[in-house]
Amino acid sequence: MHISELDTPAVLIDLDRMERNIRRAQEHCGRHGKAMRPHIKTHKIPQIARMQVEAGAVGITCAKLGEVEVMVGAGLREILLAYPIVGEAKLRRLVRVAQEANLTVAFDSLEVAQGISEAVGRYGEGSGREIGALVEIDTGMGRCGIAPGPEMVALCRRVADLPGLRFRGLMTYQGWVTGTAEERAAKLQTEDERLKRILGDLAEAGLETPVVSGGSTPTLFQSHLVEPITENRAGTYVFNDVNTVSTGAVTLDDCAMRIAVTVVSTAVPGQIIIDGGSKTFTSDRSAGPGEVTHGYVVEDPELRFVKMNEEHGYVKRDRSTKSYRIGDRLHVIPNHVCVAMNMHEEVYGHRNGEVVETWPVAARGKLR
Amino acid sequence: MHISELDTPAVLIDLDRMERNIRRAQEHCGRHGKAMRPHIKTHKIPQIARMQVEAGAVGITCAKLGEVEVMVGAGLREILLAYPIVGEAKLRRLVRVAQEANLTVAFDSLEVAQGISEAVGRYGEGSGREIGALVEIDTGMGRCGIAPGPEMVALCRRVADLPGLRFRGLMTYQGWVTGTAEERAAKLQTEDERLKRILGDLAEAGLETPVVSGGSTPTLFQSHLVEPITENRAGTYVFNDVNTVSTGAVTLDDCAMRIAVTVVSTAVPGQIIIDGGSKTFTSDRSAGPGEVTHGYVVEDPELRFVKMNEEHGYVKRDRSTKSYRIGDRLHVIPNHVCVAMNMHEEVYGHRNGEVVETWPVAARGKLR
Repeated sequence: MHISELDTPAVLIDLDRMERNIRRAQEHCGRHGKAMRPHIKTHKIPQIARMQVEAGAVGITCAKLGEVEVMVGAGLREILLAYPIVGEAKLRRLVRVAQEANLTVAFDSLEVAQGISEAVGRYGEGSGREIGALVEIDTGMGRCGIAPGPEMVALCRRVADLPGLRFRGLMTYQGWVTGTAEERAAKLQTEDERLKRILGDLAEAGLETPVVSGGSTPTLFQSHLVEPITENRAGTYVFNDVNTVSTGAVTLDDCAMRIAVTVVSTAVPGQIIIDGGSKTFTSDRSAGPGEVTHGYVVEDPELRFVKMNEEHGYVKRDRSTKSYRIGDRLHVIPNHVCVAMNMHEEVYGHRNGEVVETWPVAARGKLR
Repeated sequence: MHISELDTPAVLIDLDRMERNIRRAQEHCGRHGKAMRPHIKTHKIPQIARMQVEAGAVGITCAKLGEVEVMVGAGLREILLAYPIVGEAKLRRLVRVAQEANLTVAFDSLEVAQGISEAVGRYGEGSGREIGALVEIDTGMGRCGIAPGPEMVALCRRVADLPGLRFRGLMTYQGWVTGTAEERAAKLQTEDERLKRILGDLAEAGLETPVVSGGSTPTLFQSHLVEPITENRAGTYVFNDVNTVSTGAVTLDDCAMRIAVTVVSTAVPGQIIIDGGSKTFTSDRSAGPGEVTHGYVVEDPELRFVKMNEEHGYVKRDRSTKSYRIGDRLHVIPNHVCVAMNMHEEVYGHRNGEVVETWPVAARGKLR
């Protein structure tokens, strides 16, 4: 079946482009002695996770326990859960899934560490199986993450002593590193120096840190600038989107995911309505400067996707020289591909327009 | 089970509040001789649609064909599909589901009307079953809808003559009617006069219009001000949310849906991180003036939910006098309840905190 025969809205994955993205990232990391541990929140599809591992990734990263369960159920075995696990219901599930996989979790507090340690004792049924532990540090994001300093060293020390947990190192995130390539390089240089100081403090306290997990898609091809980072958790790089293009790190040609939509109304002059709005794309805004738009229309960059309701996309056509009729089909690259993927039940993988794969978004909507 | 025992994030529906909202809307409409045809996009749950019909609604409204299929499958029979249906795949499904229900569709173009008319001939298998038709007119929203005037009258005339379709009247939407109660009343007065002129033009052309479908939640209790409207499609009124409260039409006490979340990090001073971000609430912004926030924290209105990533909610606590610990539970009323519901696989209906219903969001994510 050709992609033009699919009903809309439909998520289309250009498999050749996606494979090129996976290969290029893996080669860069391999060249610089870094491991790839891609974040699967971008695609939420076990088949794509397996392709990343087959290309050389040491494992995957998940945001939620429900994503871990889907991925382990599909045969993935090396998993970092980059989110603090709190509450009895999740702790029970965490220990259960850890029996089947090599699981590492990240957190920033002793409360969470103790909860997991005790749960391993309570639910681990004497399996002796430990859960790996990374302490998340705040290196500028201001989200989760303990501030570097004596308290952080003390937390790592306590974690290393807790039964059921195996302290493996630190987790950071370079999501705050934005700007031009030169600006990013300068920020990464500072990060390099800071991480070396932090690791020095931990070594002085007698703590080994075989893993320093970091990275982001805009800094992916600059990850060699931060020497202490051992593995890269980039996620978006597998598809890319308008926001990653706006960082200058990639081009539109590197965008592997598009959403096919159909024109359903031309009644208002100067405007067309497409059959995808915030329920198809989400209302995540474009990160770049200038007019807020909701995606890039591949066929006609003069079309401006300026407004959305849940099922309606408002596309201004006053700058375009083309004319549009009801039933016309357009393809839109979303602003933020991770959140857009979460809105869809399945995706179509194609090569040169021929659909060769239909994949359910198996880890979609896993909130717990 | 008590709601405090549910894992988070969890959507909680206060059934007493919801039933009061349903009853109050139905009573208002009944008193003024209007029908209720609630939009189910707000809840996407057949059980709630049935409660609305049992309370007196003449039927329901859906935004997508996939929602119609779910509702018909659950036994709902009187349905308005308020969205233009385009393309062969959807037309085939439309005619199929119309065999089992009393279906009316809305559109704003002859192209869409002809497509449906021909599909009834092609796929209707001589059942003689017609599909009701409303012509959508633009009364200020600038979305779909043909501008009132001779072209609109001509379109209605053509639709009335098409086989397989039964012309029933007009569809409007008062989503553009905002402001204070007085400002809304003034705008509705204008709308009343305009609709009377439009209906006069249609009557002059020999067209009967038994249905004029309109309404919105902020104007629900003012719907008597627009005499020509025969049925109200309000959706949000069933739960209400921060945006409807900000219109002044309802109060926080009328908000029947809350999302339970848990504090997972307190590492950054002056801030807590909750386990719900844009994947739980969506990034739809607050409609009111002032600081952009992402929901109202019931326990502590001094908490400001100012930022989100997909799985992280950033809540500033610098104005609050309370202290928060990892594991604490909070309840958030979302800005826009319809889009938030779409992110969840199931909801919990409770009375005074005791869970009495667990409902799958059966029509969730139906994009086609």
